[in-house]
Amino acid sequence: MDERFMRMALEEAQRAYDLDEVPVGAVLVKGGKVLSRSHNLCEAASDPTAHAEMLAIKEAIRKTGGLLLGSTLYVTLEPCAMCAGAALNTRISRIVFGAFDIRGGCCGSVADITDGWFNHSIEVMGGILEHESKALLSRFFANKR
Amino acid sequence: MDERFMRMALEEAQRAYDLDEVPVGAVLVKGGKVLSRSHNLCEAASDPTAHAEMLAIKEAIRKTGGLLLGSTLYVTLEPCAMCAGAALNTRISRIVFGAFDIRGGCCGSVADITDGWFNHSIEVMGGILEHESKALLSRFFANKR
Repeated sequence: MDERFMRMALEEAQRAYDLDEVPVGAVLVKGGKVLSRSHNLCEAASDPTAHAEMLAIKEAIRKTGGLLLGSTLYVTLEPCAMCAGAALNTRISRIVFGAFDIRGGCCGSVADITDGWFNHSIEVMGGILEHESKALLSRFFANKR
Repeated sequence: MDERFMRMALEEAQRAYDLDEVPVGAVLVKGGKVLSRSHNLCEAASDPTAHAEMLAIKEAIRKTGGLLLGSTLYVTLEPCAMCAGAALNTRISRIVFGAFDIRGGCCGSVADITDGWFNHSIEVMGGILEHESKALLSRFFANKR
């Protein structure tokens, strides 16, 4: 189940790649149904906050009109502070991510803000289809050099 | 100077209060000029990510078309993880806040993600016009009970 939705997140990451955006994709799922799916659009939007997770969270909020308790955020790269914080604020229950981000990851790598610091905690699982997520990112940055 | 812009942020917080929103206001300033000002709109937008800081950051990005290096974020309440993370992502140089948030503040109270954890650090000063910011919040929550 987790792999299935992570493959969907990887499809989103590929879309970002095709647009010359840092290839990160995200899918929000609740009760086995996809609430939203999105990919990084920082370049196109000239907006450093247009991360895949933020866009997916915003779309899911628009659709559901409320908090996202009980939902799982699938994302190909470990969320940063902003995105993990947005997941906390919207009461997302679970985060499943692909590649670890040793520079900015806030679900364990640099910091872990998901577990017990605030009035809501998020269950986190990292490394799902890690190789595929990482390979896409590596290919992107190799092409940039 | 800091007090002057914090008074402006307090005006924004009062606007939120008048709209029955949790009264938090934010102002982004660069080179002595106001880039943007905003207030919490979580209820009106049915969006738990519509914090004053996020809205001010988004507006400033739209106006400047880029990163916010050299700018100062004035906000009446200590930023949460999402907003402090957005400040990191947009390279805001300085955060000046009013009241401390012992439940969710990520600029020192619960956690401090602004200093040295990532590839960008933010200078932080808390407690500017703290009493006024806190009084407005207290009044709001007292009315809710």
